[in-house]
Amino acid sequence: MRTNDNRDDEVDRPVATARPFMSQPLSMHPDRFFSPDPAQRAIARRLFELTEPLPILSPHGHTDPVWFAGNEPFSNPSEVFIHPDHYVFRMLYSQGISLESLGIPRRDGTVPDVDPRAAWRLLADNYRLFRGTPSGLWLDYVFHFVFGIEKRLSADTADEYYDTIDAALKSDEYRPRSLFDRFNIEVLATTESPIDTLEHHRAIRDSGWTGRVITAFRPDPVVDPEFEGFADNIAVLGEMTGFDCGDYGQYLQALRSRRDFFRSAGATSSDHGHPTAATADLGPKEAEALFARILARARHGAVEPQDAELFRAHMLVVMAEMSLEDGLVMQIHPGSSRNHNRQLFDTHGRDMGADIPSRTDYVQALRPLLDRFGNERDLSVIVFTLDESGYSRELAPLAGHYPILKLGPPWWFHDSPEGMLRMRRATHETAGFYNLVGFNDDTRAFLSIPARHDMARRMDCVHLAELVASHRLDEDAAAELIVDLSYNFAKAAYKL
Amino acid sequence: MRTNDNRDDEVDRPVATARPFMSQPLSMHPDRFFSPDPAQRAIARRLFELTEPLPILSPHGHTDPVWFAGNEPFSNPSEVFIHPDHYVFRMLYSQGISLESLGIPRRDGTVPDVDPRAAWRLLADNYRLFRGTPSGLWLDYVFHFVFGIEKRLSADTADEYYDTIDAALKSDEYRPRSLFDRFNIEVLATTESPIDTLEHHRAIRDSGWTGRVITAFRPDPVVDPEFEGFADNIAVLGEMTGFDCGDYGQYLQALRSRRDFFRSAGATSSDHGHPTAATADLGPKEAEALFARILARARHGAVEPQDAELFRAHMLVVMAEMSLEDGLVMQIHPGSSRNHNRQLFDTHGRDMGADIPSRTDYVQALRPLLDRFGNERDLSVIVFTLDESGYSRELAPLAGHYPILKLGPPWWFHDSPEGMLRMRRATHETAGFYNLVGFNDDTRAFLSIPARHDMARRMDCVHLAELVASHRLDEDAAAELIVDLSYNFAKAAYKL
Amino acid sequence: MRTNDNRDDEVDRPVATARPFMSQPLSMHPDRFFSPDPAQRAIARRLFELTEPLPILSPHGHTDPVWFAGNEPFSNPSEVFIHPDHYVFRMLYSQGISLESLGIPRRDGTVPDVDPRAAWRLLADNYRLFRGTPSGLWLDYVFHFVFGIEKRLSADTADEYYDTIDAALKSDEYRPRSLFDRFNIEVLATTESPIDTLEHHRAIRDSGWTGRVITAFRPDPVVDPEFEGFADNIAVLGEMTGFDCGDYGQYLQALRSRRDFFRSAGATSSDHGHPTAATADLGPKEAEALFARILARARHGAVEPQDAELFRAHMLVVMAEMSLEDGLVMQIHPGSSRNHNRQLFDTHGRDMGADIPSRTDYVQALRPLLDRFGNERDLSVIVFTLDESGYSRELAPLAGHYPILKLGPPWWFHDSPEGMLRMRRATHETAGFYNLVGFNDDTRAFLSIPARHDMARRMDCVHLAELVASHRLDEDAAAELIVDLSYNFAKAAYKL
Repeated sequence: MRTNDNRDDEVDRPVATARPFMSQPLSMHPDRFFSPDPAQRAIARRLFELTEPLPILSPHGHTDPVWFAGNEPFSNPSEVFIHPDHYVFRMLYSQGISLESLGIPRRDGTVPDVDPRAAWRLLADNYRLFRGTPSGLWLDYVFHFVFGIEKRLSADTADEYYDTIDAALKSDEYRPRSLFDRFNIEVLATTESPIDTLEHHRAIRDSGWTGRVITAFRPDPVVDPEFEGFADNIAVLGEMTGFDCGDYGQYLQALRSRRDFFRSAGATSSDHGHPTAATADLGPKEAEALFARILARARHGAVEPQDAELFRAHMLVVMAEMSLEDGLVMQIHPGSSRNHNRQLFDTHGRDMGADIPSRTDYVQALRPLLDRFGNERDLSVIVFTLDESGYSRELAPLAGHYPILKLGPPWWFHDSPEGMLRMRRATHETAGFYNLVGFNDDTRAFLSIPARHDMARRMDCVHLAELVASHRLDEDAAAELIVDLSYNFAKAAYKL
Repeated sequence: MRTNDNRDDEVDRPVATARPFMSQPLSMHPDRFFSPDPAQRAIARRLFELTEPLPILSPHGHTDPVWFAGNEPFSNPSEVFIHPDHYVFRMLYSQGISLESLGIPRRDGTVPDVDPRAAWRLLADNYRLFRGTPSGLWLDYVFHFVFGIEKRLSADTADEYYDTIDAALKSDEYRPRSLFDRFNIEVLATTESPIDTLEHHRAIRDSGWTGRVITAFRPDPVVDPEFEGFADNIAVLGEMTGFDCGDYGQYLQALRSRRDFFRSAGATSSDHGHPTAATADLGPKEAEALFARILARARHGAVEPQDAELFRAHMLVVMAEMSLEDGLVMQIHPGSSRNHNRQLFDTHGRDMGADIPSRTDYVQALRPLLDRFGNERDLSVIVFTLDESGYSRELAPLAGHYPILKLGPPWWFHDSPEGMLRMRRATHETAGFYNLVGFNDDTRAFLSIPARHDMARRMDCVHLAELVASHRLDEDAAAELIVDLSYNFAKAAYKL
Repeated sequence: MRTNDNRDDEVDRPVATARPFMSQPLSMHPDRFFSPDPAQRAIARRLFELTEPLPILSPHGHTDPVWFAGNEPFSNPSEVFIHPDHYVFRMLYSQGISLESLGIPRRDGTVPDVDPRAAWRLLADNYRLFRGTPSGLWLDYVFHFVFGIEKRLSADTADEYYDTIDAALKSDEYRPRSLFDRFNIEVLATTESPIDTLEHHRAIRDSGWTGRVITAFRPDPVVDPEFEGFADNIAVLGEMTGFDCGDYGQYLQALRSRRDFFRSAGATSSDHGHPTAATADLGPKEAEALFARILARARHGAVEPQDAELFRAHMLVVMAEMSLEDGLVMQIHPGSSRNHNRQLFDTHGRDMGADIPSRTDYVQALRPLLDRFGNERDLSVIVFTLDESGYSRELAPLAGHYPILKLGPPWWFHDSPEGMLRMRRATHETAGFYNLVGFNDDTRAFLSIPARHDMARRMDCVHLAELVASHRLDEDAAAELIVDLSYNFAKAAYKL
């Protein structure tokens, strides 16, 4: 590993070397992310000020409700910052650092016997990998603002960091509910499978704590025939609801029943993570036959890929139909080629940083859904993408026309300063601002939530200041928009 | 509807609200669109000054020649600004405002009984939707520079706007020919079908008015088997020309004859709006058989999609061949998935803001045409795109090699400050500046023509100033280029 | 031809003309390419200073080793600047200037009888075509810094340029080895076919000259069944190595043997220029049968396209396997639709500026290779693209996960200020900086090498300064990175 002050062990030094690191203060500049142009910076500052009193709305994410139900302290720095965050460990992995050495659990549930402090040191030793990345920017924010650290993370400071954070985590102020309050979160949505009991959400409600943690309905495990354990999941769905899920009609009833249950636990939205944005509107007979065929084959692990794709596509239209009935806002997150690294999937399973975006069509893919429901006033479908080439070509024109469509914020790899700016510049001219839904942090890294919202708000300020400074937008309109983008749009779009 | 001064009815207000609107002057900043960076801005100003005396060349657009033939006053603000402009009403529609409430005519020709002032108020009440959009920027320009209005459009000023514009439209100074002169238009091209009689163009010429309004030859209705009424159009083509258009050879003769007629009415270009950029070079026998099959099926409304695509593709090569003979410059505008909203097409027909771009290949698609004619010196083919991913990947390399190819300006959704900047930055390094053709406004919104040229010229200044300020281009070269881009390139490319 | 001071012969002048050219000094601004923003410019300057002592590493390119073996003087300005550089003559060609008039040799080896000075004047007369293009920026650099010229190239200065350059080329200071030393090149890699004897590389080594010119192994001529002369190339491969290359197993042995020979001549890398990034991992039987079928058909010029594609795909995996054994770093340069202009290919052959990028998939295409070797620690695969839409969607996520993958610099059309900036902004957030390999000049234009490295280093400064000035990166980290990007990364990635 190369460290900042001992840089000769891995890479030959050049003829001329860079300046030595005199000191490494960790500074979070108050104007961070803003344009260096003084005119734009001044506008951005004024706009950002307006966001400071606004609470955080987190309408889509992947935190674990058990944290807020149990309110137990987080364990140690490595389990907080490395283990749950595939954004972090995939970058280390890309440079040849094994998941074993970081203590990442294997697919079979076994956990490598690694001292969490040793894993932390690996992160510290290699922290240069995160230079200029959103993960690095978020981590620095958390280190500084959540833990009060004022030096940069490096091999030199690894232990000091570990001790500081570890001690803090053991204090009451760093328990989940305290942080939730300190972060000024108004609503936090988690995401659960239809066969989740939502027991933790119930426990939160029963606890008397006033923090609003809601769920979101993510039916992939029971509507995607290629989801791990699909047949078993369907069986559980039947047991939980009392419907015979071998029958297509009763399967739909079971889904309706779970949607109702989720709504009773606060859900205002569903979420759909399909490999493509394909939709299909099959007749009842055709759907029934397809479902029967899939179920029969799923029990023997051999669903035909085209059947799986067609069924997922059809179920998006079915879900839209149910949304029109029950009011859940639909989110579609397509285009990730999941578990791309076959060896890693075999040893470590899902969510190992090996999900790779792929080219995604919306124009033809969404057509069956739009043919049925595109002009409804009481249905809302929020679309996300990992294929930025579609922003100006497909998504902004679609959202700028169809009443049901809105654009989700830049997602995953694109939830970054450059990604946000590209998305804003590529969509606002065609879709306007009012077909947007504000920000989603979409994270399982709870401590990073304020950092992510800070970045998103600042990047909205950057974009709006650019428009104001080039006389494309009046500053009073920008002042209204920054509040809409930071708060109002999410509140309205997600019915919070 | 939410209005600026009564903002609580639809969206919950946040904890912190934006600053109140103290006043809403409508200002058109003299440096609008220019970079806020002082060095770039100073250069852009100097360059823009050079464009101010230049007349407007509008070599491609969709204004109605009857306006200039009859020179009747425009009717009222809503019929001028809302009804013909699908850029405007699609944005309102995307937010749930019905076309009925705006008075948009239905497909069957019936017109909703809506007071034009009520439609205007709907636009005014929702004018925030156009913040930062090119439509908003163009409208503001027209309000300010064409009608002398100095307040922003809002619910408060809706009636004042309506009255001011309505009164102006009734005056002689706002008749089409007066505006044409006032706008300093040197040439304006409209676009007509081969079966158009061009009677309005004849009337213009016969009237003694000196304004130069020319036509352009758009054969889609008689070369695209999927165009509405294709079989009938072919029949009319036969009647107009005296050729038996059931015969492929005579059909080509008929097209030649109409091209000659269009050229005699001033046409210097043809235009082709196919769903893809596919071209094909069929032998005479194959073409004849395909045409016969299509014609037979078209009479019963059942042309095979692949036959239609192949025939369109083949006809692009035929049109190129005719262009080589008669000198019409070819324009190809591919890649729009037209009438994407099926319900809306059924009720309201074409051009309802429901045309969505789709991914467009040029490299393989244009090959048959380029194999035949790519190296000709006396043929000019101007290519447009709605798929920005092709600018640097396909279009700039093609135009930077083939003598016949030139790049059209950013089209439709991309005719915007960001779209123009993306196109310029993505193409100039590979295609250079001299494979460009300057600006097309491509509009049916006649009053917006000066606004659109103003934006395009300013964005060229932005781009050139960026190159000059970063020492990639000398300012004297930029000064030459801004005049070329604003005037000379269009004049040469369209043979005006 | 239009010239700067006699501009009326081809294009009608506008009503208002641009300012006259008072003088045309050729200035290379010391801050060229840097942002005009003072804050960013100051940072960029400080970073650039750190690169000035660094030698040039040129690990991938297409210079001719005979230059360094023979050390003969270059012939004349046209043969140095026009003939070998398809970036230059394709731009002239796009504007209707024939290759004949430039003296470009034909496919049959005949050379048009053109005075090199006349060809040079054609370039000079049309030099405006290169305004703002990387070719123009590189040429100006060479004119100024290599030949000391202080006026811009134009019709007026054409002869003065020709005489100055021609005289210099005849002097010892401008012989290849002198320039190599003057350019401060530490290593220069050329690229050769497996059936090249590498005699010039041997001659260089035997000459006692200390310049390090190494080769790279480019097996396309013997692994791509659609390469010109494939069957003959295979036969030569057999003769050179003594293996019976009609047998698949021995063919692989022959390739291994040539790889060893290349390594003995200094090669540290292989390079693969396939039309797509497809990889395939065939079993030995299947591969053997495919090879036999291809070889049988290749002798009669009729390999099935799908066979050719599958074989190339398979051979990438085979080459990866050999790389794992022998340590050659693999480079994949896919996505060029070569020889797109059929007529020009017939008359002039390959490398005539008619290679057009096309859409390129990596996510599915690379999967077979990644399934086999993606997690290896001792294999390095550097991927390039001509399809910029894949930077953020596919390449950065892949390189930010797989240990074997690294991203090559912007390639060919994208080796330009805008192209470099787009690539850096689109990849650094997801892949970080440490999955990059620094710069490749990839050129056959030897004299332009310092110009290209100067541009690349400056654009890294632009990018890093942008991050520093917006407080996304500390300046001390940027100072380390600029040295890595300019020198260390290439040295490590290419094992130099």
